[in-house]
Amino acid sequence: MRMIDRSLFATLGYAAPDGTVQLRRVFCVWHRGLGGHLISTNTSSAHAQHLLQNGAASLYFADDEAFCGLCLSGSVTVHTSGRFKTLLWNDGDEKYYPQGPDDPDYCVIEFTAEQGSFYRFDGKGTLSAADLAAFDAGKDYRNGYAAEHG
Amino acid sequence: MRMIDRSLFATLGYAAPDGTVQLRRVFCVWHRGLGGHLISTNTSSAHAQHLLQNGAASLYFADDEAFCGLCLSGSVTVHTSGRFKTLLWNDGDEKYYPQGPDDPDYCVIEFTAEQGSFYRFDGKGTLSAADLAAFDAGKDYRNGYAAEHG
Repeated sequence: MRMIDRSLFATLGYAAPDGTVQLRRVFCVWHRGLGGHLISTNTSSAHAQHLLQNGAASLYFADDEAFCGLCLSGSVTVHTSGRFKTLLWNDGDEKYYPQGPDDPDYCVIEFTAEQGSFYRFDGKGTLSAADLAAFDAGKDYRNGYAAEHG
Repeated sequence: MRMIDRSLFATLGYAAPDGTVQLRRVFCVWHRGLGGHLISTNTSSAHAQHLLQNGAASLYFADDEAFCGLCLSGSVTVHTSGRFKTLLWNDGDEKYYPQGPDDPDYCVIEFTAEQGSFYRFDGKGTLSAADLAAFDAGKDYRNGYAAEHG
């Protein structure tokens, strides 16, 4: 969890309509425990459009210096309205989305993990849906990067 | 190309037998132009075993600070013998592979790109098979990180 909170970015992976795996580095600092993650992006982007068609995806956090990584597999919901768009809005985002939080080209991708696998210098292991549910019980979304970096 | 040469790591993505996309951070410094990349790893690792069954994969290079990324899609060959195992061998690797370069648990994954997409702060674009072939013509494998960092 601390590795996730330290991260500014994660890598999102999904199968594109042409069958290839597509990978995209995404800014990702809002987390609900280990299993829930929010990513704001352009609704018109290729990854948002592909994920609207097929929400199966994986999200990967890694720390190269500490040699550890966590690969979560699950699915996404692309929110084009609702509270997450307000929650993730930052002053200055108008330069990307001129119409503000309600800009139709601004959306929030919510990733929900169903399972995970992790490695660290000292070993590796897996996280089941039950492991994730137990760890995440009672947690709500928070900006982990802001909490970690004060 | 310079972003690739600066990188110590890339992210490898592939579809696992259970249908999920699996992502793994891999040490990747040997490149043949934009389209060929070598990764040494344990033959017994989950990603090597999965890729022996189905070689379709993507390889992603990114620089978070420069806000640029390149996603290559293609396929891999897992080399359990041959010149690449000697080429990538480093003094000290015996601690991972006690039998030396011929250790059966030591293998080299060769990734060959068929297409790519890239983004940078100032825009985005795609690379076709013809683009990759033109750029890579006449090039052989070299350690780009060593060349970039002197």
